[in-house]
Amino acid sequence: MLPDLPSLVPSTRRRRTLFVYLAMSLAAVAIFFAIRTRGESLSAPVAAVGGGQRDGAHTAELAHVLLALAVITLLARAVGVFVHRFLRQPPVIGEIIAGLMLGPSLLGWVWPQGYEFLLPDNVAPFLGIISKVGVVLFMFLVGLELDPKLLRGSAHSTIAVSHASIFAPLLLGAALALWLYPVYATGDVSFTSFSLFLGVSLSVTAFPVLARILRDRRAQRTRLGVTALACAAVDDVSAWTLLAIVAGIATAQMSGAAWTVLWVVVYVLAMLFVVRPLLTRWFVAREQSREGPLSHSALAIVFASLLLSAVATEAIGIHALFGAFLLGAILPHEGRLPEQIRAKLEDVVLVLFLPSFFAFTGMRTSIDLLSGARDWLFCAAIIVVATLGKFGGSFVAARAVGMSWRHSAALGIMMNTRGLMELIVLNLGLDLGVITPTVFTMMVFMALVTTFMTTPLLDLLLGRSGFADPVSSNSGASAPGEIS
Amino acid sequence: MLPDLPSLVPSTRRRRTLFVYLAMSLAAVAIFFAIRTRGESLSAPVAAVGGGQRDGAHTAELAHVLLALAVITLLARAVGVFVHRFLRQPPVIGEIIAGLMLGPSLLGWVWPQGYEFLLPDNVAPFLGIISKVGVVLFMFLVGLELDPKLLRGSAHSTIAVSHASIFAPLLLGAALALWLYPVYATGDVSFTSFSLFLGVSLSVTAFPVLARILRDRRAQRTRLGVTALACAAVDDVSAWTLLAIVAGIATAQMSGAAWTVLWVVVYVLAMLFVVRPLLTRWFVAREQSREGPLSHSALAIVFASLLLSAVATEAIGIHALFGAFLLGAILPHEGRLPEQIRAKLEDVVLVLFLPSFFAFTGMRTSIDLLSGARDWLFCAAIIVVATLGKFGGSFVAARAVGMSWRHSAALGIMMNTRGLMELIVLNLGLDLGVITPTVFTMMVFMALVTTFMTTPLLDLLLGRSGFADPVSSNSGASAPGEIS
Repeated sequence: MLPDLPSLVPSTRRRRTLFVYLAMSLAAVAIFFAIRTRGESLSAPVAAVGGGQRDGAHTAELAHVLLALAVITLLARAVGVFVHRFLRQPPVIGEIIAGLMLGPSLLGWVWPQGYEFLLPDNVAPFLGIISKVGVVLFMFLVGLELDPKLLRGSAHSTIAVSHASIFAPLLLGAALALWLYPVYATGDVSFTSFSLFLGVSLSVTAFPVLARILRDRRAQRTRLGVTALACAAVDDVSAWTLLAIVAGIATAQMSGAAWTVLWVVVYVLAMLFVVRPLLTRWFVAREQSREGPLSHSALAIVFASLLLSAVATEAIGIHALFGAFLLGAILPHEGRLPEQIRAKLEDVVLVLFLPSFFAFTGMRTSIDLLSGARDWLFCAAIIVVATLGKFGGSFVAARAVGMSWRHSAALGIMMNTRGLMELIVLNLGLDLGVITPTVFTMMVFMALVTTFMTTPLLDLLLGRSGFADPVSSNSGASAPGEIS
Repeated sequence: MLPDLPSLVPSTRRRRTLFVYLAMSLAAVAIFFAIRTRGESLSAPVAAVGGGQRDGAHTAELAHVLLALAVITLLARAVGVFVHRFLRQPPVIGEIIAGLMLGPSLLGWVWPQGYEFLLPDNVAPFLGIISKVGVVLFMFLVGLELDPKLLRGSAHSTIAVSHASIFAPLLLGAALALWLYPVYATGDVSFTSFSLFLGVSLSVTAFPVLARILRDRRAQRTRLGVTALACAAVDDVSAWTLLAIVAGIATAQMSGAAWTVLWVVVYVLAMLFVVRPLLTRWFVAREQSREGPLSHSALAIVFASLLLSAVATEAIGIHALFGAFLLGAILPHEGRLPEQIRAKLEDVVLVLFLPSFFAFTGMRTSIDLLSGARDWLFCAAIIVVATLGKFGGSFVAARAVGMSWRHSAALGIMMNTRGLMELIVLNLGLDLGVITPTVFTMMVFMALVTTFMTTPLLDLLLGRSGFADPVSSNSGASAPGEIS
């Protein structure tokens, strides 16, 4: 065993070193056994303080949580890669399906013992908190990703299309609530909450999934792609604003709703006109102009701000997600700070945290709850109404403002993508008690089906590179569609 | 509001767009109120399935968990920066102190209501699981950081010093157990477990903290620095191996201990001769030779392997930490894969997860438990014995193999740094039930004091840049100490 490193010891002393080392080892073992012989005769006092016991239980749960995380991470990735490679779907759909597979709908059905072992009841709360913290971080990243230029600089056509694609499903959903409420709601939820929630949840567009689909088609910089992204961004902001109102109404009931709305307004104004300038002047400006990797202090400030903003919205009575999202939205979207935060956080959140959110969603989704033909009929009705509202609304509005029918149809199809955002909204509704697990399950199916249909329908309508088509004659812009 | 983006709409139609948009908005509101009027007369069925209730409780806890994380992150960082700037200590000491401040020892003592609000009992389990997952990730990073060249290529002097710095505190600790066991142990813990654990926990060196101290002094590439790091690395591997044996004995009691040891041997052999070649051939080799950022699949595989390895050790009866550490140790330590994993994971773990581990440790540390003079006397005895064993053992061994007295003393002081590693070991002991909360509290103080004394003592002995001193005359190496 020759040393690679320059030794501090002259080589003549090597033998002595080895001898010292061996002697020490032997002596140590001998001494320990001498001590042990002496000590075994001692008796300890009986347990007085039981502090260790409570935590001993968690240790057993730790193994289960780690095992669950490992299986979830692997399966989500495997199914994600599968649907991406063989069905040309965005991987997130596979991750959602993997979550459903691990729940009572598949694993719990074909192999109840395996389900009970992998995701026992005492592990569910821990998985729940990990997935919720993960979604809070994810919504922060969505806010950080939200390009304000898409919102600010968008054409009237974008505003018209995006509003139509909110209002149409919102109203159709609310109307559908007339049939669903008497059958599936619980008595302690008002029709207003239920119908508004149903409407808003049908009007969600999955901005991140849409961005991913467009990126896969290299179409995120074509005019149609940009319009779709802008509409989705406006949709997201509007839908989440409406959802905050619904959440406020649902938790506060009618009497306190006014207070909730007031607090929300105070909170948003504080974020825009106090927190944002403060952060910008004192922190962001400095961090943006520096070089090299972000310091731990900078990261700590970002994390703490995001967590505190989330706590504030949770305290108001709307969900922690809004706070995380808004903090992301008021930070700068370009430059050193957001880029490094994204680099640090994005992959860990997407690979480690989000799959556990899907698994948590899967645990709450149970096909069992859809027992009869009536349930499946309603499920189908939700899917039809969701598509009709979202696709139809966008299509009609796009035609009305003068887009070609093919681009209008493509836009409608893209706006019908709900994916992950829908699941976040649905879990929120279930947490608030606005919807029941049965409605939750129906809506999860709706989210999956509407997201799944986007890619094949786009292929059918535009071909695989349809976005590169010259824009139809009624476009007033002169620059040709650019493909990155 | 002029559009920045090329519009899909000819400008002559702008007015029409605006009109459509306004009409839609108004119509939507009107229609919703019509639906609502109709719907308010409906009645919903009474609650049948209570699936939402169980999770409603977590939502309340989510706010507390997020608030706790925010406060912990901020305070840890603030105290960390404070001790670094004003006391020239490594920040991790400040983070540990911040954790203690949030526990019953300070916050719970001066402001019990505040403590009860910030860290209520129902939040502790969640904080516990988050901090444990964090420490598992951290130990993986420590394993990944462990430079095998430090172990393989180290001189006999390193081996002698590092073994002396394990055996001396181990034996002194075991001897100390003769006095501690009758007073502080519980009846269901054997003297062997107690004394071995006490001994091993005194022999821990905080490799990461030491690396940080050396980096702060720009001394990590001087010969003394390299020797210290090599000793600490050997120490860590030896201490964790011993600890695995202790954990195996403690959980299995004597009868099953043989089985535990057998399983540990099987596990380690499987990791070295099955998992490692498999991972290397099928995954690592491919990932190392690629370019660009790591794919999500690669990250998922690393995460899942690390989690599964942790689950395996937990199932054997030693702690999840060992598995995470060993997986980190068998992965390559240089190149694209480890560098990118470190870049993704390190800061998030250090800034977001570890402080919650310190807070969790702080919650379990209570000065109250040290009630009388006898308790404080034992606490002081532990500190003296720990220092005597670690410093004394290293110093004597270093002198014996021929190092100068100043370098020997410096080496002894550095090996006496315990920091964070000690806390991980102590929490493990408390989880296993080997030590009581009282002994835990004493040992936390010992960890803090021994870590804290390292920097001022080194200053005293070597001056601020003492590592750059020409190495004393009895060194056989020719290359001068290099400072990076």
